[in-house]
Amino acid sequence: MENRITQLFEIKYPIIQAGMIWCSGWELASAVSNAGGLGIIGSGSMYPQILQEHILKCKASTVKPFAVNVPLLYPDIDKHIKIILDEQVKIVFTSAGNPKTWISIFKDHGVKVVHVVSSSKFAKKAEDAGCDAVVAEGFEAGGHNGREETTTMVLIPLVKNAVHIPVIAAGGIATGSAMLAAFALGADGVQIGTRFAASIESSAHDAFKQKIISSEEGDTLLAMKKVVPVRMMRNKFFDEIQQAEDRGATADELKQILGRARAKKGMFEGDLDNGELEIGEVSAQVREIKPAAEIVEEIWQEFIKGKEKLAAM
Amino acid sequence: MENRITQLFEIKYPIIQAGMIWCSGWELASAVSNAGGLGIIGSGSMYPQILQEHILKCKASTVKPFAVNVPLLYPDIDKHIKIILDEQVKIVFTSAGNPKTWISIFKDHGVKVVHVVSSSKFAKKAEDAGCDAVVAEGFEAGGHNGREETTTMVLIPLVKNAVHIPVIAAGGIATGSAMLAAFALGADGVQIGTRFAASIESSAHDAFKQKIISSEEGDTLLAMKKVVPVRMMRNKFFDEIQQAEDRGATADELKQILGRARAKKGMFEGDLDNGELEIGEVSAQVREIKPAAEIVEEIWQEFIKGKEKLAAM
Repeated sequence: MENRITQLFEIKYPIIQAGMIWCSGWELASAVSNAGGLGIIGSGSMYPQILQEHILKCKASTVKPFAVNVPLLYPDIDKHIKIILDEQVKIVFTSAGNPKTWISIFKDHGVKVVHVVSSSKFAKKAEDAGCDAVVAEGFEAGGHNGREETTTMVLIPLVKNAVHIPVIAAGGIATGSAMLAAFALGADGVQIGTRFAASIESSAHDAFKQKIISSEEGDTLLAMKKVVPVRMMRNKFFDEIQQAEDRGATADELKQILGRARAKKGMFEGDLDNGELEIGEVSAQVREIKPAAEIVEEIWQEFIKGKEKLAAM
Repeated sequence: MENRITQLFEIKYPIIQAGMIWCSGWELASAVSNAGGLGIIGSGSMYPQILQEHILKCKASTVKPFAVNVPLLYPDIDKHIKIILDEQVKIVFTSAGNPKTWISIFKDHGVKVVHVVSSSKFAKKAEDAGCDAVVAEGFEAGGHNGREETTTMVLIPLVKNAVHIPVIAAGGIATGSAMLAAFALGADGVQIGTRFAASIESSAHDAFKQKIISSEEGDTLLAMKKVVPVRMMRNKFFDEIQQAEDRGATADELKQILGRARAKKGMFEGDLDNGELEIGEVSAQVREIKPAAEIVEEIWQEFIKGKEKLAAM
């Protein structure tokens, strides 16, 4: 199957592995790219030098295209972008900020830019700024999230209707059936986080991976809405946040509880009680830790079989 | 197309119009049933005698099957159920409560029972209780909602995997594309509320219908979580609720603000400032007030075309 996303990125399957802090380093990104999807290095949890190492190792591990995800509010953003350009990374996924600020420098260097949005308004802005595609990410997605709380089911048709550039659906997608659902809604590709966070090649702590595959419905919720909405797993730390929110804590009080390096503590160091465990609702569907290549192939086969089943209906 | 839902209800299309307080009386229900879907009278906002009138008028307006939705926590539930049995309604959709309490009396009278759930756990319970099908309703749905906040995209595969009885997807579905997405996820039918709330035959106040078709992303949010989670439209009343929640108001304080008859005030009397406007996220996609029959036919045609388009991909 060829479509606008496979053509844009020169990949085999329109399956993109989300850039995730503490989960998606060079090992995961290169494994996904080698399997025919698009792997993404998540730079949000990396110091500039670490990012450079990951890019170099990724280049050494795959000849296929891969991307780097850049949260635009990252403090050392200039250094990150310099490294991306110096190392001639060809695809960048930007998030959490305005792509307009950086798009011309990327475009001048022939870098394809995809921006992550949670509303059709921001999708339109990304298109107007010159982005090559958007990721439309629904309420069910893990990590940072939009204030409108629009779910993938509702969001994809709205974004599709608002822009001409290709739309990559994200949030709640871990299987070929969900990929097919996203395509039925008008998506040209899917971005998958949670399922790959629990892959062999994910750099997440094994305790966190185990927590993902044993989690159930309702085990993640959107919290920290007064600061920035983040979907995370229920645990001791989450309960502290929720209790504070229930009694009407201010943004400053919440920031105090959040403290520093909570995501690293939970996702990378495996402190399941005190760490911040960013993950999507779809974790309730993920039951096994598998190699990334197997995940890509499984999703693709399910997608094809689902397509045939629907057609025969 | 024949499937388990069209066979169960003896209808042409697996398209079900949700039972909605102040919106779905006999006019809407009979229009949907006459068009080949399944119309549902929403009894939650009706006194027993009013319900009886609606059932009689519905019977006079269609020879096709129709259903009554029964919120099981309704105070006069015994009277409602007596009327349903006396009037020989053949299909009942139960919600907000435990179907186990009433199922044997329905079954003794040959009534098909479908229960609305927001989790696979409750779906399994409904199946074990003897229900003929379940409606799995996602976070994006209007009105009363589950505490797990699981979206339709994530919920449908989980429910499908948990039960053997047919699964009707609800929440975020207003078009044939979304219906196709629901089928890709494993649904056997769809239940559609918001789009029919804004139909000609809906008994909602015209001001509320106009508000629905002019609403945008983020205009509905889930509120009242300390009492019972309800998705409603932002307005003056919503702001009061939200401000109270932000400062940590208790359930009792929220109930005080809620007061009485807020939904009637907003949805039926058209007081857009002080009324409670229960509606789904998908209102952002609904742009026209149309006859119910046209809506049913349009959704079906989109579904068929979408299926062909996917197959050709």
